[in-house]
Amino acid sequence: MERDTIPPDVVVRRLPVYARSLRYLLAEGVRSISSQELGERINMTAAQIRKDLSYFGEFGKQGIGYDVERLLAQIEQILGLQQEWPVALVGLGHLGQAVARYDGFRSRGLHIVALFDNDPAKIGQAFIEGITVQHTNEIAATVPVRNIRVGIVAVPAVYAQEVAHTLTSAGVRAILNYAPIVLQVPAGVWVREIDPVVVLHSMTFYLARDASLQRD
Amino acid sequence: MERDTIPPDVVVRRLPVYARSLRYLLAEGVRSISSQELGERINMTAAQIRKDLSYFGEFGKQGIGYDVERLLAQIEQILGLQQEWPVALVGLGHLGQAVARYDGFRSRGLHIVALFDNDPAKIGQAFIEGITVQHTNEIAATVPVRNIRVGIVAVPAVYAQEVAHTLTSAGVRAILNYAPIVLQVPAGVWVREIDPVVVLHSMTFYLARDASLQRD
Repeated sequence: MERDTIPPDVVVRRLPVYARSLRYLLAEGVRSISSQELGERINMTAAQIRKDLSYFGEFGKQGIGYDVERLLAQIEQILGLQQEWPVALVGLGHLGQAVARYDGFRSRGLHIVALFDNDPAKIGQAFIEGITVQHTNEIAATVPVRNIRVGIVAVPAVYAQEVAHTLTSAGVRAILNYAPIVLQVPAGVWVREIDPVVVLHSMTFYLARDASLQRD
Repeated sequence: MERDTIPPDVVVRRLPVYARSLRYLLAEGVRSISSQELGERINMTAAQIRKDLSYFGEFGKQGIGYDVERLLAQIEQILGLQQEWPVALVGLGHLGQAVARYDGFRSRGLHIVALFDNDPAKIGQAFIEGITVQHTNEIAATVPVRNIRVGIVAVPAVYAQEVAHTLTSAGVRAILNYAPIVLQVPAGVWVREIDPVVVLHSMTFYLARDASLQRD
């Protein structure tokens, strides 16, 4: 990749979807796939996939398709997943516990190495094998020592901004936010949100529209 | 809105983010806001907000800004939230339980009315007050009776496609999918995915890029 070319963020967001699909193909024993077939799996056109990948170089051979393992390795390298990113998870309520126990994080470049909560009943518990919950007032000391650049915020909305501030002050540069607020973070910090209500509301739009058209 | 104008999906996806932000403003007692101020809250430009809203009609007054309550009501109407959508949640593992207990769904047009799992130990339990878990083999009979059009899939990946098929066959037209696979659904059915790994990987891209630039 050219150092000074930044692909559109919408393309960057799709790369992990390609990687995920390629991982499943590999698990199914598929060795080679055309952009057409890959597109059918993820509801995209072959042309869009080829265009997305063209931002990052040459992939696949005309008429032969992609070598699944090789393309996956290339995309994972583009996504920085040849290295392991230590992750801090803040908030061990129902959602935080589900996130802590989600195996999806292992072996894909992410590794939760620190857990934080402010509930005394949870401090010292091990929701992940070998990692005990620390008090949130230890975030500032722990993040630099463990070289943590990625944080997951799973605390109630009322605490989320303060937690984000503590994380970023300590060196975190990417936050996955489950709290239903828009976090304010310093320049150079990435935030992505996961809010099921927002996602569902972007679909009720279409359902309401269809219902309205049917009534006419 | 013109009946035959379909705004780009990326705009539709942002409307719920506007609505969420307006709800917080209202809760804070803010009655009026400029597109500039709203933009600062959600990391967007005023021009982009005005352009997005222009797909749906005229909002706000030049130089006065938006009436928060009125704009929220208008956006909720566009999103079809003046009515209540009954929702089925399938899968009551850690994640499903977190979703079931999330209050965010109430009073925003969504109402979980049915819970399903295939674990005999969970059938009959009430993870939401007044709603007991039914066996997944009751999905086909329950969905039409409760007029359910929206489903949440929180089962392990290996069951997700089958559950999606059962839901859509029974009449579900929008699925929020937490399982880490791309669901195949019939035409006319909307699917959005929530996969924290995909979201995190779209940020490690930038962290890796920054680190690479710093090394040069």
